[in-house]
Amino acid sequence: MQQYFVKGRPENPLTIKDKDTLKHMFQVMRLKADDKVTLVFDDGIKRLARVLNVDSQTFEILQGLEDNVELPVSVTIASGFPKGDKLDWLTQKATELGADAIWAFPADWSVVKWDGKKLAKKEDKLAKIALGAAQQSKRNRLPQVKLFEKKKDLLKQLPDFDKIFLAYEESAKAGELSTLASSLRQSQSGDKLLFIFGPEGGISPQELAEFEKSGAIPVGLGPRIMRAETAPLYALSAVSFYTELLKF
Amino acid sequence: MQQYFVKGRPENPLTIKDKDTLKHMFQVMRLKADDKVTLVFDDGIKRLARVLNVDSQTFEILQGLEDNVELPVSVTIASGFPKGDKLDWLTQKATELGADAIWAFPADWSVVKWDGKKLAKKEDKLAKIALGAAQQSKRNRLPQVKLFEKKKDLLKQLPDFDKIFLAYEESAKAGELSTLASSLRQSQSGDKLLFIFGPEGGISPQELAEFEKSGAIPVGLGPRIMRAETAPLYALSAVSFYTELLKF
Repeated sequence: MQQYFVKGRPENPLTIKDKDTLKHMFQVMRLKADDKVTLVFDDGIKRLARVLNVDSQTFEILQGLEDNVELPVSVTIASGFPKGDKLDWLTQKATELGADAIWAFPADWSVVKWDGKKLAKKEDKLAKIALGAAQQSKRNRLPQVKLFEKKKDLLKQLPDFDKIFLAYEESAKAGELSTLASSLRQSQSGDKLLFIFGPEGGISPQELAEFEKSGAIPVGLGPRIMRAETAPLYALSAVSFYTELLKF
Repeated sequence: MQQYFVKGRPENPLTIKDKDTLKHMFQVMRLKADDKVTLVFDDGIKRLARVLNVDSQTFEILQGLEDNVELPVSVTIASGFPKGDKLDWLTQKATELGADAIWAFPADWSVVKWDGKKLAKKEDKLAKIALGAAQQSKRNRLPQVKLFEKKKDLLKQLPDFDKIFLAYEESAKAGELSTLASSLRQSQSGDKLLFIFGPEGGISPQELAEFEKSGAIPVGLGPRIMRAETAPLYALSAVSFYTELLKF
């Protein structure tokens, strides 16, 4: 069943205001009276709803659904600005894999330089990609998308997290492959985890020091060298496997 | 250091015959006498080599390197033909994530229809993508790329594997999330694992029966719905995390 994230509060009858959502519902999907959809409000609860009236575009909420597919821990991905449209792709995949937030920041070795205007436009595009992917993968939460104009604004956020991991290629080269596993063992349901990734060129020595000072733990993600946009997917998959399949 | 997969046997002096490799070495990278590269022959051992002579394009092999980044188990990915260029992308990412072989087959619900000629051309393109990705991620093995023209040819291969997993969305929906973890627990170093994935439309009921008859175990890969090209990356990441980071 088609799922939509909607703003506002669950009330009956319900009027949806977002134009893109309405367009998808009534022009793309051609919903008719009595057709059913899943609506997800900001509370993350999926609700079954039926179309009351196509002309007035109103719905009746029928019941709440138990279904919850969110990771038991919250995972934020923070990636150094990568080249080209890799962030588009990363946003889609990280959303499918359960990220709670997808952030990016100007790393020392980021090649691209995006100013405030460009960033706002890009953030808007990424938010749309995240919305589409979250609806398709039936998420209960719409991941937050945030592009930091300055690295120091990212650094200010770090105290909010229970654990901060820094994907660091040199850790992998040095054979350091157990820190992530042992740290996940110590994590509890509800913990807020942050994974920081460099851009194509990696993390600079100064950044390594900055992030470590803020409590980040350098971790290796297996012995192979992954591209900048692949490593976050590995981290999310590993967290899912450990917390959802192996179980805490 | 730049790494190249080369055919033939490690001998001194060494002449490399592959034109694309030579072009990359001497035109793109502009190697000079005494410059060093890593060469990987079919035996999967990385060897340090230096350019003896640019004109004759000859090398001297200096020493073998200990470095081995291959997964402790062999993982083959078999994907139902997906739409568009998703297989290109999947080949690149699965190579980075350590796949031993990347296969695809015409699944019942594959939308695309590729005949023998088209398949050969596509296989050739994918092999080049795998080569580039394997060199960049410093693999010891070049993954095999194989597109099956008929599903029955894939089915014939199944007895070669120690374990066969079928990524099955309905398993995830039914809350079945522990089979993969418990099966991996029983795996040993050197085991040959096959993961089968449906195309966008998923696996048909008849295919499910066929694959199960051949010993495939339906597994859920977390509760979220992933796109056809994302699920194989989850599986490879999970196997790496379990066998390389958590350790057997």
